[in-house]
Amino acid sequence: MSADNQQERLDANWIVGFVDGEGCFHIPINKMDKMTLGWQVLPEFRVVQHQKDEKMLNKLQEYFGFGKVTVNREDHHGIRKEYRVRGLNNLNQMIEFFREHPLQTTSKKQSFRIFTKVIEMMNKKEHLTQEGLDKIAKLVSKMNRKPKLKYLESSETIRQTPTIELVKI
Amino acid sequence: MSADNQQERLDANWIVGFVDGEGCFHIPINKMDKMTLGWQVLPEFRVVQHQKDEKMLNKLQEYFGFGKVTVNREDHHGIRKEYRVRGLNNLNQMIEFFREHPLQTTSKKQSFRIFTKVIEMMNKKEHLTQEGLDKIAKLVSKMNRKPKLKYLESSETIRQTPTIELVKI
Repeated sequence: MSADNQQERLDANWIVGFVDGEGCFHIPINKMDKMTLGWQVLPEFRVVQHQKDEKMLNKLQEYFGFGKVTVNREDHHGIRKEYRVRGLNNLNQMIEFFREHPLQTTSKKQSFRIFTKVIEMMNKKEHLTQEGLDKIAKLVSKMNRKPKLKYLESSETIRQTPTIELVKI
Repeated sequence: MSADNQQERLDANWIVGFVDGEGCFHIPINKMDKMTLGWQVLPEFRVVQHQKDEKMLNKLQEYFGFGKVTVNREDHHGIRKEYRVRGLNNLNQMIEFFREHPLQTTSKKQSFRIFTKVIEMMNKKEHLTQEGLDKIAKLVSKMNRKPKLKYLESSETIRQTPTIELVKI
Protein backbone atom coordinates (compact mmCIF):
# COMPACT_ATOMS: atom_id res chain seq x y z
CA MET A 1 0.00 0.00 0.00
CA SER A 2 1.37 3.41 -0.92
CA ALA A 3 2.05 6.12 1.66
CA ASP A 4 -0.84 8.13 0.22
CA ASN A 5 -3.32 5.31 0.63
CA GLN A 6 -2.11 4.64 4.15
CA GLN A 7 -2.92 8.24 4.99
CA GLU A 8 -6.45 7.84 3.65
CA ARG A 9 -7.52 4.73 5.50
CA LEU A 10 -7.03 3.88 9.14
CA ASP A 11 -5.44 0.57 10.09
CA ALA A 12 -6.87 -1.40 13.04
CA ASN A 13 -3.46 -1.66 14.73
CA TRP A 14 -2.89 2.06 14.24
CA ILE A 15 -6.20 2.71 16.01
CA VAL A 16 -5.17 0.50 18.93
CA GLY A 17 -1.87 2.37 19.25
CA PHE A 18 -3.60 5.73 19.09
CA VAL A 19 -6.18 4.67 21.69
CA ASP A 20 -3.41 3.22 23.90
CA GLY A 21 -2.07 6.77 23.90
CA GLU A 22 -5.11 9.02 23.63
CA GLY A 23 -8.22 6.96 24.31
CA CYS A 24 -10.31 7.22 27.43
CA PHE A 25 -12.80 4.77 28.91
CA HIS A 26 -14.96 6.89 31.11
CA ILE A 27 -17.79 5.89 33.45
CA PRO A 28 -19.49 8.84 35.14
CA ILE A 29 -22.21 8.02 37.66
CA ASN A 30 -24.53 11.00 37.63
CA LYS A 31 -27.12 12.03 40.19
CA MET A 32 -30.46 11.94 38.40
CA ASP A 33 -33.63 12.01 40.46
CA LYS A 34 -35.87 10.56 37.78
CA MET A 35 -33.88 7.29 37.73
CA THR A 36 -35.26 4.57 40.00
CA LEU A 37 -32.14 4.54 42.18
CA GLY A 38 -31.48 8.27 41.76
CA TRP A 39 -28.23 7.69 39.81
CA GLN A 40 -27.43 7.20 36.14
CA VAL A 41 -24.45 5.19 34.90
CA LEU A 42 -23.36 6.72 31.59
CA PRO A 43 -20.32 4.90 30.19
CA GLU A 44 -18.55 6.41 27.22
CA PHE A 45 -15.45 5.99 25.12
CA ARG A 46 -13.58 9.11 24.08
CA VAL A 47 -10.62 10.29 22.09
CA VAL A 48 -9.82 13.98 22.57
CA GLN A 49 -7.68 16.00 20.15
CA HIS A 50 -6.94 19.61 19.44
CA GLN A 51 -9.27 20.98 16.76
CA LYS A 52 -6.43 21.00 14.21
CA ASP A 53 -6.52 17.19 14.37
CA GLU A 54 -10.31 16.95 14.07
CA LYS A 55 -9.91 15.11 10.75
CA MET A 56 -8.48 12.17 12.64
CA LEU A 57 -11.55 12.05 14.90
CA ASN A 58 -13.79 12.04 11.82
CA LYS A 59 -11.78 9.13 10.45
CA LEU A 60 -12.35 7.19 13.67
CA GLN A 61 -16.07 7.90 13.39
CA GLU A 62 -16.05 6.71 9.77
CA TYR A 63 -14.10 3.58 10.68
CA PHE A 64 -16.48 2.49 13.42
CA GLY A 65 -19.65 3.83 11.83
CA PHE A 66 -21.07 5.07 15.13
CA GLY A 67 -20.35 7.71 17.76
CA LYS A 68 -20.03 11.44 17.13
CA VAL A 69 -17.41 14.18 16.93
CA THR A 70 -18.22 17.11 19.19
CA VAL A 71 -16.60 19.89 21.23
CA ASN A 72 -14.73 18.68 24.32
CA ARG A 73 -13.68 22.03 25.76
CA GLU A 74 -12.30 25.42 24.85
CA ASP A 75 -9.48 27.14 26.72
CA HIS A 76 -6.35 29.22 26.08
CA HIS A 77 -4.91 26.34 24.00
CA GLY A 78 -7.88 26.67 21.63
CA ILE A 79 -10.76 24.30 20.96
CA ARG A 80 -10.50 20.59 21.73
CA LYS A 81 -12.76 18.14 19.98
CA GLU A 82 -13.70 14.60 20.96
CA TYR A 83 -14.82 11.45 19.24
CA ARG A 84 -17.37 10.08 21.68
CA VAL A 85 -19.20 6.77 21.75
CA ARG A 86 -22.18 6.22 24.03
CA GLY A 87 -25.00 3.70 24.12
CA LEU A 88 -24.78 0.02 25.00
CA ASN A 89 -25.17 -1.20 21.44
CA ASN A 90 -22.25 0.92 20.16
CA LEU A 91 -20.09 0.26 23.20
CA ASN A 92 -20.57 -3.49 22.84
CA GLN A 93 -19.25 -3.20 19.27
CA MET A 94 -16.34 -1.08 20.49
CA ILE A 95 -15.50 -3.74 23.09
CA GLU A 96 -15.62 -6.41 20.39
CA PHE A 97 -13.11 -4.40 18.35
CA PHE A 98 -10.66 -4.19 21.26
CA ARG A 99 -11.09 -7.90 22.00
CA GLU A 100 -10.00 -8.64 18.44
CA HIS A 101 -7.23 -6.01 18.57
CA PRO A 102 -6.00 -5.92 22.18
CA LEU A 103 -4.74 -2.76 23.82
CA GLN A 104 -1.06 -2.96 24.74
CA THR A 105 -0.35 -0.58 27.61
CA THR A 106 -0.80 -1.80 31.18
CA SER A 107 -2.98 1.12 32.23
CA LYS A 108 -5.27 1.12 29.21
CA LYS A 109 -5.69 -2.66 29.43
CA GLN A 110 -6.76 -2.25 33.06
CA SER A 111 -9.26 0.51 32.20
CA PHE A 112 -10.66 -1.56 29.35
CA ARG A 113 -11.06 -4.61 31.62
CA ILE A 114 -13.10 -2.61 34.14
CA PHE A 115 -15.07 -0.85 31.41
CA THR A 116 -15.95 -4.21 29.86
CA LYS A 117 -17.11 -5.60 33.22
CA VAL A 118 -19.42 -2.62 33.73
CA ILE A 119 -20.86 -2.86 30.21
CA GLU A 120 -21.48 -6.58 30.68
CA MET A 121 -23.33 -5.84 33.92
CA MET A 122 -25.38 -3.18 32.13
CA ASN A 123 -26.19 -5.63 29.34
CA LYS A 124 -27.84 -7.71 32.06
CA LYS A 125 -29.50 -4.57 33.52
CA GLU A 126 -27.66 -5.05 36.81
CA HIS A 127 -27.03 -1.29 37.09
CA LEU A 128 -30.75 -0.91 37.83
CA THR A 129 -30.42 -2.78 41.11
CA GLN A 130 -28.90 -1.31 44.24
CA GLU A 131 -26.47 -4.22 44.53
CA GLY A 132 -25.37 -3.84 40.91
CA LEU A 133 -24.93 -0.10 41.20
CA ASP A 134 -22.77 -0.52 44.31
CA LYS A 135 -20.63 -3.08 42.48
CA ILE A 136 -20.24 -0.79 39.45
CA ALA A 137 -19.20 2.13 41.67
CA LYS A 138 -16.56 -0.05 43.31
CA LEU A 139 -15.24 -1.19 39.93
CA VAL A 140 -15.10 2.40 38.65
CA SER A 141 -13.22 3.51 41.76
CA LYS A 142 -10.39 1.16 40.72
CA MET A 143 -9.89 2.98 37.43
CA ASN A 144 -6.81 5.16 37.09
CA ARG A 145 -6.59 8.87 37.81
CA LYS A 146 -10.08 9.47 39.09
CA PRO A 147 -11.19 11.76 41.90
CA LYS A 148 -12.94 10.22 44.89
CA LEU A 149 -16.25 8.85 43.63
CA LYS A 150 -19.19 10.91 44.85
CA TYR A 151 -21.54 7.96 44.57
CA LEU A 152 -19.46 5.95 47.01
CA GLU A 153 -19.18 8.91 49.37
CA SER A 154 -22.91 9.45 49.26
CA SER A 155 -23.73 5.80 49.76
CA GLU A 156 -22.03 6.08 53.15
CA THR A 157 -24.18 9.11 53.96
CA ILE A 158 -27.17 10.32 51.98
CA ARG A 159 -27.46 10.14 48.19
CA GLN A 160 -27.89 13.69 47.05
CA THR A 161 -24.56 14.81 45.60
CA PRO A 162 -24.51 16.56 42.20
CA THR A 163 -23.19 15.28 38.87
CA ILE A 164 -19.92 13.39 39.08
CA GLU A 165 -17.30 13.65 36.40
CA LEU A 166 -14.41 11.19 36.31
CA VAL A 167 -11.24 12.42 34.70
CA LYS A 168 -9.25 10.69 31.94
CA ILE A 169 -8.26 7.16 32.82
CA MET B 1 -1.96 -14.17 15.27
CA SER B 2 -3.48 -14.91 18.69
CA ALA B 3 -4.32 -12.16 21.15
CA ASP B 4 -1.50 -13.39 23.39
CA ASN B 5 1.11 -13.10 20.66
CA GLN B 6 -0.15 -9.69 19.71
CA GLN B 7 0.49 -8.56 23.24
CA GLU B 8 4.05 -9.83 23.08
CA ARG B 9 5.20 -8.21 19.87
CA LEU B 10 4.65 -4.65 18.70
CA ASP B 11 3.15 -4.03 15.30
CA ALA B 12 4.54 -1.21 13.12
CA ASN B 13 1.10 0.36 12.65
CA TRP B 14 0.46 0.17 16.38
CA ILE B 15 3.72 2.06 16.95
CA VAL B 16 2.68 4.77 14.47
CA GLY B 17 -0.68 5.16 16.23
CA PHE B 18 0.97 5.31 19.64
CA VAL B 19 3.52 7.88 18.42
CA ASP B 20 0.74 9.91 16.74
CA GLY B 21 -0.69 10.15 20.24
CA GLU B 22 2.29 10.14 22.57
CA GLY B 23 5.44 10.72 20.54
CA CYS B 24 7.45 13.92 20.59
CA PHE B 25 9.97 15.24 18.08
CA HIS B 26 12.04 17.66 20.06
CA ILE B 27 14.84 19.97 18.93
CA PRO B 28 16.42 21.93 21.77
CA ILE B 29 19.11 24.43 20.83
CA ASN B 30 21.34 24.70 23.87
CA LYS B 31 23.86 27.39 24.76
CA MET B 32 27.23 25.68 24.88
CA ASP B 33 30.37 27.79 24.87
CA LYS B 34 32.71 25.07 23.69
CA MET B 35 30.80 24.70 20.40
CA THR B 36 32.20 26.77 17.50
CA LEU B 37 29.04 28.87 17.22
CA GLY B 38 28.28 28.75 20.97
CA TRP B 39 25.09 26.70 20.46
CA GLN B 40 24.37 23.00 20.27
CA VAL B 41 21.46 21.52 18.28
CA LEU B 42 20.41 18.32 20.07
CA PRO B 43 17.45 16.69 18.29
CA GLU B 44 15.70 13.82 19.99
CA PHE B 45 12.65 11.63 19.67
CA ARG B 46 10.73 10.81 22.84
CA VAL B 47 7.80 8.86 24.12
CA VAL B 48 6.91 9.63 27.72
CA GLN B 49 4.77 7.35 29.89
CA HIS B 50 3.96 6.92 33.53
CA GLN B 51 6.30 4.42 35.17
CA LYS B 52 3.51 1.81 35.34
CA ASP B 53 3.71 1.64 31.53
CA GLU B 54 7.50 1.41 31.41
CA LYS B 55 7.21 -2.06 29.86
CA MET B 56 5.80 -0.44 26.72
CA LEU B 57 8.83 1.86 26.48
CA ASN B 58 11.14 -1.14 26.79
CA LYS B 59 9.25 -2.82 23.95
CA LEU B 60 9.78 0.24 21.75
CA GLN B 61 13.49 0.13 22.57
CA GLU B 62 13.58 -3.58 21.69
CA TYR B 63 11.69 -2.99 18.45
CA PHE B 64 14.03 -0.29 17.19
CA GLY B 65 17.21 -1.70 18.73
CA PHE B 66 18.52 1.73 19.74
CA GLY B 67 17.69 4.55 22.13
CA LYS B 68 17.27 4.23 25.90
CA VAL B 69 14.60 4.19 28.58
CA THR B 70 15.29 6.70 31.33
CA VAL B 71 13.56 8.95 33.88
CA ASN B 72 11.66 11.88 32.36
CA ARG B 73 10.49 13.57 35.55
CA GLU B 74 9.07 12.91 38.98
CA ASP B 75 6.19 14.85 40.48
CA HIS B 76 3.02 14.32 42.54
CA HIS B 77 1.68 12.00 39.81
CA GLY B 78 4.68 9.71 40.39
CA ILE B 79 7.64 8.90 38.17
CA ARG B 80 7.43 9.36 34.39
CA LYS B 81 9.79 7.46 32.16
CA GLU B 82 10.78 8.17 28.58
CA TYR B 83 12.02 6.20 25.60
CA ARG B 84 14.55 8.59 24.09
CA VAL B 85 16.47 8.41 20.82
CA ARG B 86 19.41 10.71 20.16
CA GLY B 87 22.30 10.64 17.70
CA LEU B 88 22.13 11.23 13.96
CA ASN B 89 22.64 7.58 13.05
CA ASN B 90 19.71 6.42 15.19
CA LEU B 91 17.48 9.34 14.23
CA ASN B 92 18.06 8.67 10.54
CA GLN B 93 16.83 5.12 11.10
CA MET B 94 13.83 6.44 13.03
CA ILE B 95 12.99 8.79 10.15
CA GLU B 96 13.25 5.89 7.70
CA PHE B 97 10.74 3.95 9.82
CA PHE B 98 8.21 6.81 9.73
CA ARG B 99 8.71 7.25 6.00
CA GLU B 100 7.71 3.62 5.52
CA HIS B 101 4.89 3.91 8.07
CA PRO B 102 3.57 7.48 7.83
CA LEU B 103 2.20 9.35 10.82
CA GLN B 104 -1.50 10.17 10.46
CA THR B 105 -2.33 13.21 12.59
CA THR B 106 -1.92 16.66 11.07
CA SER B 107 0.17 18.02 13.94
CA LYS B 108 2.52 15.05 14.24
CA LYS B 109 3.03 14.96 10.47
CA GLN B 110 4.02 18.64 10.61
CA SER B 111 6.46 18.09 13.48
CA PHE B 112 7.96 15.10 11.70
CA ARG B 113 8.41 17.11 8.48
CA ILE B 114 10.35 19.84 10.29
CA PHE B 115 12.32 17.31 12.33
CA THR B 116 13.32 15.51 9.12
CA LYS B 117 14.45 18.76 7.49
CA VAL B 118 16.67 19.57 10.47
CA ILE B 119 18.19 16.08 10.57
CA GLU B 120 18.90 16.27 6.83
CA MET B 121 20.67 19.58 7.36
CA MET B 122 22.67 18.09 10.21
CA ASN B 123 23.60 15.12 8.01
CA LYS B 124 25.26 17.71 5.76
CA LYS B 125 26.83 19.44 8.80
CA GLU B 126 24.91 22.64 8.00
CA HIS B 127 24.19 23.21 11.71
CA LEU B 128 27.88 24.06 12.13
CA THR B 129 27.52 27.18 9.97
CA GLN B 130 25.89 30.40 11.13
CA GLU B 131 23.53 30.39 8.17
CA GLY B 132 22.50 26.78 8.80
CA LEU B 133 21.96 27.36 12.51
CA ASP B 134 19.75 30.37 11.79
CA LYS B 135 17.71 28.30 9.34
CA ILE B 136 17.33 25.46 11.85
CA ALA B 137 16.18 27.89 14.54
CA LYS B 138 13.54 29.28 12.20
CA LEU B 139 12.33 25.79 11.29
CA VAL B 140 12.13 24.80 14.96
CA SER B 141 10.16 27.95 15.77
CA LYS B 142 7.41 26.65 13.46
CA MET B 143 6.96 23.51 15.52
CA ASN B 144 3.81 23.27 17.64
CA ARG B 145 3.50 24.27 21.28
CA LYS B 146 6.96 25.67 21.88
CA PRO B 147 7.92 28.70 23.95
CA LYS B 148 9.68 31.58 22.20
CA LEU B 149 13.01 30.29 21.01
CA LYS B 150 15.90 31.75 23.04
CA TYR B 151 18.32 31.27 20.19
CA LEU B 152 16.22 33.50 17.94
CA GLU B 153 15.84 36.09 20.69
CA SER B 154 19.57 36.12 21.28
CA SER B 155 20.43 36.35 17.60
CA GLU B 156 18.63 39.66 17.60
CA THR B 157 20.72 40.81 20.58
CA ILE B 158 23.72 38.99 22.04
CA ARG B 159 24.12 35.22 22.17
CA GLN B 160 24.49 34.38 25.83
CA THR B 161 21.16 32.94 26.99
CA PRO B 162 21.13 29.71 29.01
CA THR B 163 19.89 26.26 27.99
CA ILE B 164 16.64 26.23 26.03
CA GLU B 165 14.07 23.51 26.47
CA LEU B 166 11.29 23.13 23.95
CA VAL B 167 8.11 21.56 25.25
CA LYS B 168 6.23 18.65 23.69
CA ILE B 169 5.30 19.25 20.06
